[in-house]
Amino acid sequence: MTNSNISSLHAIKTADAQRDRDRLFASAAHISADLAKRGADLDREGQPPFEEVSTLKSTGLLNALHPPQIGGGGLEWVDGLRLVRILARGESSIGQLLGYHYVNSQYIYWAADDPDQAWQLGTETVAKNLYWGAAVNPRDPGLTLTRRDGHYVLNGRKTFSTGARISDRINVNAAFDHQVANFVIPTDRPGYITNDDWDNIGQRLSDSGSVEFHDFPVYDSDFILPLAAPDAAAKVQATFNTPLIQLVFANFYLGTAEGALAEALDYVRTATRPWITSGVERAAEDPYILERVGEFRAALKAAAALADSAALVVQTALARGSSVTERERGEAAIEAYESKVNATHVSLEITARIFELMGARATASRYRFDRYWRNVRTHTLHDPVFYKAREVGDFALNARIPPVSLYS
Amino acid sequence: MTNSNISSLHAIKTADAQRDRDRLFASAAHISADLAKRGADLDREGQPPFEEVSTLKSTGLLNALHPPQIGGGGLEWVDGLRLVRILARGESSIGQLLGYHYVNSQYIYWAADDPDQAWQLGTETVAKNLYWGAAVNPRDPGLTLTRRDGHYVLNGRKTFSTGARISDRINVNAAFDHQVANFVIPTDRPGYITNDDWDNIGQRLSDSGSVEFHDFPVYDSDFILPLAAPDAAAKVQATFNTPLIQLVFANFYLGTAEGALAEALDYVRTATRPWITSGVERAAEDPYILERVGEFRAALKAAAALADSAALVVQTALARGSSVTERERGEAAIEAYESKVNATHVSLEITARIFELMGARATASRYRFDRYWRNVRTHTLHDPVFYKAREVGDFALNARIPPVSLYS
Amino acid sequence: MTNSNISSLHAIKTADAQRDRDRLFASAAHISADLAKRGADLDREGQPPFEEVSTLKSTGLLNALHPPQIGGGGLEWVDGLRLVRILARGESSIGQLLGYHYVNSQYIYWAADDPDQAWQLGTETVAKNLYWGAAVNPRDPGLTLTRRDGHYVLNGRKTFSTGARISDRINVNAAFDHQVANFVIPTDRPGYITNDDWDNIGQRLSDSGSVEFHDFPVYDSDFILPLAAPDAAAKVQATFNTPLIQLVFANFYLGTAEGALAEALDYVRTATRPWITSGVERAAEDPYILERVGEFRAALKAAAALADSAALVVQTALARGSSVTERERGEAAIEAYESKVNATHVSLEITARIFELMGARATASRYRFDRYWRNVRTHTLHDPVFYKAREVGDFALNARIPPVSLYS
Amino acid sequence: MTNSNISSLHAIKTADAQRDRDRLFASAAHISADLAKRGADLDREGQPPFEEVSTLKSTGLLNALHPPQIGGGGLEWVDGLRLVRILARGESSIGQLLGYHYVNSQYIYWAADDPDQAWQLGTETVAKNLYWGAAVNPRDPGLTLTRRDGHYVLNGRKTFSTGARISDRINVNAAFDHQVANFVIPTDRPGYITNDDWDNIGQRLSDSGSVEFHDFPVYDSDFILPLAAPDAAAKVQATFNTPLIQLVFANFYLGTAEGALAEALDYVRTATRPWITSGVERAAEDPYILERVGEFRAALKAAAALADSAALVVQTALARGSSVTERERGEAAIEAYESKVNATHVSLEITARIFELMGARATASRYRFDRYWRNVRTHTLHDPVFYKAREVGDFALNARIPPVSLYS
Repeated sequence: MTNSNISSLHAIKTADAQRDRDRLFASAAHISADLAKRGADLDREGQPPFEEVSTLKSTGLLNALHPPQIGGGGLEWVDGLRLVRILARGESSIGQLLGYHYVNSQYIYWAADDPDQAWQLGTETVAKNLYWGAAVNPRDPGLTLTRRDGHYVLNGRKTFSTGARISDRINVNAAFDHQVANFVIPTDRPGYITNDDWDNIGQRLSDSGSVEFHDFPVYDSDFILPLAAPDAAAKVQATFNTPLIQLVFANFYLGTAEGALAEALDYVRTATRPWITSGVERAAEDPYILERVGEFRAALKAAAALADSAALVVQTALARGSSVTERERGEAAIEAYESKVNATHVSLEITARIFELMGARATASRYRFDRYWRNVRTHTLHDPVFYKAREVGDFALNARIPPVSLYS
Repeated sequence: MTNSNISSLHAIKTADAQRDRDRLFASAAHISADLAKRGADLDREGQPPFEEVSTLKSTGLLNALHPPQIGGGGLEWVDGLRLVRILARGESSIGQLLGYHYVNSQYIYWAADDPDQAWQLGTETVAKNLYWGAAVNPRDPGLTLTRRDGHYVLNGRKTFSTGARISDRINVNAAFDHQVANFVIPTDRPGYITNDDWDNIGQRLSDSGSVEFHDFPVYDSDFILPLAAPDAAAKVQATFNTPLIQLVFANFYLGTAEGALAEALDYVRTATRPWITSGVERAAEDPYILERVGEFRAALKAAAALADSAALVVQTALARGSSVTERERGEAAIEAYESKVNATHVSLEITARIFELMGARATASRYRFDRYWRNVRTHTLHDPVFYKAREVGDFALNARIPPVSLYS
Repeated sequence: MTNSNISSLHAIKTADAQRDRDRLFASAAHISADLAKRGADLDREGQPPFEEVSTLKSTGLLNALHPPQIGGGGLEWVDGLRLVRILARGESSIGQLLGYHYVNSQYIYWAADDPDQAWQLGTETVAKNLYWGAAVNPRDPGLTLTRRDGHYVLNGRKTFSTGARISDRINVNAAFDHQVANFVIPTDRPGYITNDDWDNIGQRLSDSGSVEFHDFPVYDSDFILPLAAPDAAAKVQATFNTPLIQLVFANFYLGTAEGALAEALDYVRTATRPWITSGVERAAEDPYILERVGEFRAALKAAAALADSAALVVQTALARGSSVTERERGEAAIEAYESKVNATHVSLEITARIFELMGARATASRYRFDRYWRNVRTHTLHDPVFYKAREVGDFALNARIPPVSLYS
Repeated sequence: MTNSNISSLHAIKTADAQRDRDRLFASAAHISADLAKRGADLDREGQPPFEEVSTLKSTGLLNALHPPQIGGGGLEWVDGLRLVRILARGESSIGQLLGYHYVNSQYIYWAADDPDQAWQLGTETVAKNLYWGAAVNPRDPGLTLTRRDGHYVLNGRKTFSTGARISDRINVNAAFDHQVANFVIPTDRPGYITNDDWDNIGQRLSDSGSVEFHDFPVYDSDFILPLAAPDAAAKVQATFNTPLIQLVFANFYLGTAEGALAEALDYVRTATRPWITSGVERAAEDPYILERVGEFRAALKAAAALADSAALVVQTALARGSSVTERERGEAAIEAYESKVNATHVSLEITARIFELMGARATASRYRFDRYWRNVRTHTLHDPVFYKAREVGDFALNARIPPVSLYS
């Protein structure tokens, strides 16, 4: 990516757009700081974050990526992903939920067969401030669509559905005969059951419990791809959800680690006692603490720089619209996966080691300082990092782009 | 650094400038590829690279950062540092020498008391394609200036002087009474003795042997700062050589590691035999090799992304000219040092581990594949990475900017 | 340590003693396996382990190190520390509590001025199966002894007192005038208040809450060192509690990591699903999982081998009784600290990474698989590992033995 | 391994044997110290170490493992492997060569079909102080045996044959019809050609060049297994060469790292200058240097403890003679491979990082301090460490013992 490309991408940005952008970033920073203060409580309670998502709605953050013409924030993906990172500094699950929503709600623009339908869905989304979830995990195939009385009914169960209870709309993949049906449904129809059974050691606010569909009605107008289109999956644009969701991961991992480090530094400055043989009067002058802080920061800065540069590559490829090729998608995806691999290691390392800066008393349960590590530890298992590294290696060694899937 | 800043910095670039830039990058890539082919021989011989520097001269790379008005390439630092990285892919010392020259030859623009003098030196440098070295290492103070017969004579010895024999001009710091005198001298006056005694395990082409000055004549016109100016050192701009040289380090370390990985991948594809229990037919399909390649690449990409973003921060601060503050310089320097810390670890790790991809036969002396590690191992000791990390930590924890020196 | 030393140390062991030893190891293994099954529940409840300590009493494990002549198990330290490791496999806090008790209850033999008093205390301890705690933390000096009515009263507060509620006897250091008084007290006298306020993210059963002493009566017969003995601290034997407690740490960290790995392997065999692109039918055949298991095991085996060999060195030095020198104590302590440093890194790494073997579903809260990491993360902060490494380095580089303290 | 096992293994050792053992260890330490002094020169020259092997002969070290009844040193494998480690401290190749000889020359006792033949070969070996090599690498099958005139002739080429020029006897595997023939030959018959073409970046004295056999005569009496024995390979004892050679690797890697660290500490004490911002007067007081030394030492001690304990396990299994089972061999081998995996990582890390203690001037070519890393880097590629870790993991997860081969 050359600077002059960056330049041309952004040169058209108006002063108004810049003001809107600044306002969204300021909101994100403000919400993040507030979340950080309440982080320990939120983690202990582990409830679906209805109130927090409501704040995302009222500040316009939920609509930040929608086109300005329909009232959206008009931001590009590089910025959207930075907003995810900023929110994750305050609370990891909120970063995750914002990022998932961005991918789920933008998906219609790339995937919908009919641009008017996408535009209409987008317009309604912005107007009503709708949160978008998804029920598409290929490791957990459990949804079946069947015809009934001139429409369809959806039945089945998804074990994990992030944002299950807070979602207003969800993208669904379901088996229909021997096809996969793609449609968007509102969650307020009868037959959508959320079980509120998400109880994991991390990402405790991510509202990722199981959902069930009991004869949930689906109508022709819900389909974003015609059922009869056998080559729908071949639409390259529609496969950008995977590199983008992987960049969402990278960014909320890094945001979580940045939040952890910031909290730890604050603790060192105010609470850590200097070690008895250190010869210094404040822990913040301890040579080993200083060095480790420097190392953590250097690693975080590198990971964030890659997250940003990979986002720009993916955004640029996606901006090629329907002319983007599989190869271009694959090469852009590799950048995203490199970022994901790197962010995984860096965020795990730093969230685990902040305790070495703070000392023994920081393990008191009331701080819940272990939540940073629990959060990244939990989600970095989404798909094994060794297989992601393998895909990157296969590209580097054998020039193979990753096979398209919801994991790569 | 926001995208819109990037945008405004570069928007004025003309098509002509873009063409020149492209040409310089193409030259660098070409030279680098050629160096890579001859790398083993060059390392074995370990001679001052007269011929290679001559190529840098003839292609305009040596003048890439000088203003276009005097015939320079007009590139900014972000690009200059990328050129260093590209050349280091082919041969680490050549990357180092180009980077040192950039800092040494640009130094006059920031440090010279008289802008006309700087302009004149620059003009002559471009016209004659002069290579600039330096004799300023504060760990090795050995030069003394004394008055004699209406001019001065310089005497003393510097243990290590990178580019000693290839330099046309050198920046010198020397003791004069109780001051430090700053001047620029040509190396073709009598009394400049190079001992050709650089024989280290790495950076063997860097021509870093000792130099001696025996009654070397220095004239008033050589001084770039008046001798009587006690607060000369307070000129903030003139202290940017340290963050920039540290970025030179980061970039040539990374370039070396990139070159090592590229070479290793080539070897794996063409020479490595699959392991007997691997169950694959080509080493390039081995699961462990693929994963490691992916990990190395992810780490390298992150380090390079940080090197680029740190370069932009330093370049932007430097562009503020005489209005740049100590604080701004300090904050920009921290970005550079973060990059340096990160690049140190990444380049050492990858250059040491490429062998695990290639296998036992890659240790044959004729390949000299250990040179990549020897190169980064040697130069990463320039100043201890733990003290650099400490400075970063001190900034993060205590908001202290690094004390200005030739090391920080 | 040569094999022939090992040989001479153990040659006198009789068959009876061997049977007793085997029985103790079998009991420990049995209890550990039972604890492992209940580990998640125990961690969630985080209560003082009254029942579990009762089992340690009834099986003779609490008295394993006391001399056989008074009914103890007669084991040496190498074995005692292995028992700690075995129990920690099942539940980390139980391993810690057993180890602390060993050090606290053996301390009298080395420290008591009057051997008869030590023997008497030992005899009573074995007969009544007493658990020994301590209130001696030098980072938290809070206890004061004063004279009152022909005896003494103890007042003050200790923030952390491991085994506070389960202890029958405790070793106490308290300020008395300008001296430090050393005495042993039963916890059933009036004025011993335990606050049950231990609530940390790890070692949740270690019963490490605060204790207060309110006019707690202390009698002359409680003192194990005469108050007037200014050079009491110079008794080298009495300073072996520090290397031994550090070996207790190393062993229960390693036991915890061994337990974590065993649990993870079991989960991989029975619950982990093979990754979709792995090409294998069982997760237990995944090449990356296999390799990581091998790496974890190799690291654990090395750490355990060092823990054992260091224990033998310390045990051998301690066996020299009153003739052991400060230098010998220092050299033995260095072995213990090397083991502690190594065990810290290995146990943190493995307990954090077992999730990469098990996959995403292993983060369900009901498993509480994060407890292994929380346990070692919490206690490895007891004293900073960088200062322990520094002491080892100071010995290696400068031949300095560590200054005697309760930390080194 | 319990202490009482250790005890029973060694109780029979007589005082005489102990004296012999002490003498051998003293010789090894003496030779090692001398090698360390000449290490840089030896590495530069990279010649077959005729003189050094001669010293191993004259001191009895070459015969240290042969039975005392025939004049051997009577040492067990635990001690033999320690001798390898000690010699490698001085010069890595000499450690390797001693270890290879131990395995090659002891092999006859386990493998020879006729015990008298083994005894006779052993007796001659001790009497004449013969060095034993081998030509058996299964990755490089190139030797063919054919009948001619009532005997056999051997033809072919081995690319790498450690000790090629210094060997007096070699074990050979060669193809004969569809069988593998096993025999022992003296190297002074006509037709044994050594090409002196070993020129690799490490283990430069290991004399590992190619050998060729041109109609080399082989006689019936050279065979140690009857040609007609199809199940010869099923003799479990004869497969202990692999775990033992892997332990030789582990021990000479560790010895090399120990030697590197010792040399670095010496340099730090005498030559390294304190860093300008360190605030200390001697580099040996630098906090970061001290900590790293402590870390390196802790890692080395753990690796050495595992090397010793694994050696005892293998030795004990081997001591079961013809009754040892495949399973027992497999379980013992796993211990050896754990040690190998661990020693690989530790030795690579430390030999690469000693420079961070010593500083920039230690990279002068005359020190050749990079040879430690070059040595372990070269040989640790003998077989990929990830496949060794995989075998350990397969044992831990799936209870599979490694398939018997010359690599596992």
